[in-house]
Amino acid sequence: MLYSLQAGGKRIRPMLVYAVLSSYKKEMELGDDAALAIEMIHTYSLVHDDLPAMDDDDMRRGKPTNHKVFGEATAILAGDALLTYSIQLIRESSRIPDSLKLDIIGAIVHAAGPNGMVGGQMADMEAEKQQVSVEELEKVHEHKTGDLLAVALESGAILAEASNQERLTLAEFGHHIGLAFQIKDDILDVEGDEEEIGKPVGSDQGNDKSTYVSILGLDGAKEKLAYHTKAALHELSKLSADTSILEELALYIENRSS
Amino acid sequence: MLYSLQAGGKRIRPMLVYAVLSSYKKEMELGDDAALAIEMIHTYSLVHDDLPAMDDDDMRRGKPTNHKVFGEATAILAGDALLTYSIQLIRESSRIPDSLKLDIIGAIVHAAGPNGMVGGQMADMEAEKQQVSVEELEKVHEHKTGDLLAVALESGAILAEASNQERLTLAEFGHHIGLAFQIKDDILDVEGDEEEIGKPVGSDQGNDKSTYVSILGLDGAKEKLAYHTKAALHELSKLSADTSILEELALYIENRSS
Repeated sequence: MLYSLQAGGKRIRPMLVYAVLSSYKKEMELGDDAALAIEMIHTYSLVHDDLPAMDDDDMRRGKPTNHKVFGEATAILAGDALLTYSIQLIRESSRIPDSLKLDIIGAIVHAAGPNGMVGGQMADMEAEKQQVSVEELEKVHEHKTGDLLAVALESGAILAEASNQERLTLAEFGHHIGLAFQIKDDILDVEGDEEEIGKPVGSDQGNDKSTYVSILGLDGAKEKLAYHTKAALHELSKLSADTSILEELALYIENRSS
Repeated sequence: MLYSLQAGGKRIRPMLVYAVLSSYKKEMELGDDAALAIEMIHTYSLVHDDLPAMDDDDMRRGKPTNHKVFGEATAILAGDALLTYSIQLIRESSRIPDSLKLDIIGAIVHAAGPNGMVGGQMADMEAEKQQVSVEELEKVHEHKTGDLLAVALESGAILAEASNQERLTLAEFGHHIGLAFQIKDDILDVEGDEEEIGKPVGSDQGNDKSTYVSILGLDGAKEKLAYHTKAALHELSKLSADTSILEELALYIENRSS
């Protein structure tokens, strides 16, 4: 569990929890357990995705994958335990008021389960090696990665005791930056700098994978990226909080080179 | 998810939820979501345990295992989704008062996670093909199967709004019948009727597995079975509720022939 949790990564989901708390001028520490719980769920999903029966990846974040180090059986159990312990962490948190725990747990399991991340993962497997429409592709990404990004923002909103409306607006923002992130990934795979992105340019084409670029072309994908970034910023404009950090984050996703 | 959930089984964990509710003269329906959630967790653990990387079982409850029918990747995801959805089910239950949900979720994830079932599964893997003491064997079973049995009883107690003391007493009862169940399994493997128990007599010896019989001998195992049954009944005597169903269950476990 620790090996994969400590393997690094961009920590985008924890960052989103803290960015919301900061927008609402709350103490950062209030977000620690929710940030960790969501990162644990993200990590478990990577450990299981990397398994030979799934994507069969040997390396993750520059280190051997969990099953390469500990064996498949332990990797399966470590994933199961990370998922289960993430909920235990919220339940037993001394930082989160009890009155907010049920809402946070509910939002997280909804985002992580069959209606969210796991459902998206299943849809992704079914879509592989098939010609899919851009709508189908968006649906896969919305659940596979978008729901967990959105729930990081929602958890921040719940902890900040923002209104239900603001919570939904932040989730919507999360979905737009999630899609923007994926589209940018697909664009970088075509025109990125190999050294900066850390993997060979053009690897998606080699895999015969449907991407935004393969479906919409490079210009179409860039338009779509601009659209989702704009839509994300529009959501922020509806909020009462000072959302400049979230704005920067959305612009960073659009303009990053790795 | 449905395939494995509907594959049958003894449904002991749901039965325990209902038995506690009945002891406290509560409506059975109050237990439906907790009973189902715990059965979902039990089912996910079987789906993952049966995987080639774990026990590599082709059959479960007379049917092909999940991965044999749907493939390994789907079986991994189905297990993940069953676990996650079990918590969602409690969260979104219209039968369980909101004020009790956090307690039930907390008890369930504690019993299912690294300090409970998954930890026991890991310890079991480490103990395989090793000579272990009876204390180590008990510890494995206590977590691998006992914790989830105990939490079925605890969930019933929470739903019945029994005192914390009664809840702990019922959990203790659960641990004793869990161990009794396992000891009886080991005894039946030696002196059971092949047709009644549905698997070849002596299969544990063939597997080189540490069992109560291999460590304590047949008479020692029977003594231990009697001890845990007596201890279970003693726990029940501390309760104010009418626990005759739970008593019957404990005696059935001791005396069953399959």
